[in-house]
Amino acid sequence: MHSHPFDDAIRLDAVGDHVYTGQTTTPYANMVGPYGGTTCAVLLNAALLHPERQGDPISLTVNFASPIAGGGFEIEARPVRTNRSTQHWSMQMRQADGVVATATAVLALRRETWSAAEAVAPADVQPAASLARADTRGRPAWTQRYDMRFADGDLPPVFDSVEQPHSRSRLWMRDDPPRPLDFASLAALCDGFFPRIFLRRRMLTPIGTVSLTSYFHADAAALAAQADRHVLGTARAQAYRNGYFDQSAEVWSDDGRLLASTHQIVYYRA
Amino acid sequence: MHSHPFDDAIRLDAVGDHVYTGQTTTPYANMVGPYGGTTCAVLLNAALLHPERQGDPISLTVNFASPIAGGGFEIEARPVRTNRSTQHWSMQMRQADGVVATATAVLALRRETWSAAEAVAPADVQPAASLARADTRGRPAWTQRYDMRFADGDLPPVFDSVEQPHSRSRLWMRDDPPRPLDFASLAALCDGFFPRIFLRRRMLTPIGTVSLTSYFHADAAALAAQADRHVLGTARAQAYRNGYFDQSAEVWSDDGRLLASTHQIVYYRA
Repeated sequence: MHSHPFDDAIRLDAVGDHVYTGQTTTPYANMVGPYGGTTCAVLLNAALLHPERQGDPISLTVNFASPIAGGGFEIEARPVRTNRSTQHWSMQMRQADGVVATATAVLALRRETWSAAEAVAPADVQPAASLARADTRGRPAWTQRYDMRFADGDLPPVFDSVEQPHSRSRLWMRDDPPRPLDFASLAALCDGFFPRIFLRRRMLTPIGTVSLTSYFHADAAALAAQADRHVLGTARAQAYRNGYFDQSAEVWSDDGRLLASTHQIVYYRA
Repeated sequence: MHSHPFDDAIRLDAVGDHVYTGQTTTPYANMVGPYGGTTCAVLLNAALLHPERQGDPISLTVNFASPIAGGGFEIEARPVRTNRSTQHWSMQMRQADGVVATATAVLALRRETWSAAEAVAPADVQPAASLARADTRGRPAWTQRYDMRFADGDLPPVFDSVEQPHSRSRLWMRDDPPRPLDFASLAALCDGFFPRIFLRRRMLTPIGTVSLTSYFHADAAALAAQADRHVLGTARAQAYRNGYFDQSAEVWSDDGRLLASTHQIVYYRA
């Protein structure tokens, strides 16, 4: 039986009470090192796999301290505080040259209570089945690991450096091969939105996510209900200023419920 | 000479290479413990005051692990990675019963480069001078430390439990007494938006911020240019789901530049 390439990418071996080892995998390779989404997922996974885990993820912040080299890494994961209904985690990912990423996560035991939507999913996006899959040939390997279907805001066919008025995208996204959604894969999907500056400037410029935060609105039951069908992503930027821009995105279930909201600040070289 | 109450609230004494002590102050008291904004600011301040500091803040994430008691605290602040242009920090705030907050911050040396706005400040908000200051009598002490002038979205005069369709606010904000804006006070302001659920449900319900992330788009020159004039805040929620909701906000200069974007996830008891 083959395991899914995503499960290979987030596999960890416990080598101490709070220390795991893992390694980057080529199916999720990025331009340099691994796709940031798998880095987020494997850092979260260190908390999720831990015997002291209590609850499901509410928030995850990952700071990308240094380029991550392809190959092995070590993750230290510690629950710094366990309350009645929440648990706070701190993680560090290290390679030979030191700390390459840090992360914090909050897990919680949720109970059903008054709930409401405020942001609403776009109503005018065609179903995934009626849209063509984006052609990601020539792009980094990780982009082949997602079936992306853009209603609008795909990368341009030609990077002609014609500056655009905005960088908004709306697209269906699904793991390829299909895989039932869980917290780790949702954490990875949150980094699946191309850097907004590529759309805004229609130009490829060196970039790197500095810090990424995701909030999980879905509980395990909502993820199970979504199963392996496409989710809808919406993304935009707020400001590009002297080397750093921020982008925000949402991941919606195919029946219009917000599964996650996510924000990141990204270094760019202009 | 009197110091500003905000400077009193974020004062730290170095008691070791990476350890400081500080204490909460009554002018910034919240319902329980200190205002979260001063907690964010003092955690950031631990990095900013450190002799190894390199650069100005790009991002700050604070996880509120436990209610913070009024009184003394200790902050440990460590630069986990210093690169050519960025520096990654991890902080822990501790009181007698253990870790009460953790934080990570990224500092950076910025240089002038191509920049652009994508989100735009609302154009139809009256100037601060033509709006009345919000009456915060009877609210926690920290609300008196801000001159808030709502164009819309103030807390209701009566909490009548009539659910509203949204929770959007637009308001001018300024330290009281006025104080020139800096990174610490901007970090605090980012938590100055009332919990959206109070507006949405027109009901006071127990809440607590679990995790807050702020991105700083302004550099020191932009903050100096803003000086002690009112900044414009805009805020909204995305989703309220089974005990947690997320809210996003922006802080704009009075000439319409985005100074900071900020996001938080908040526990609520319904």
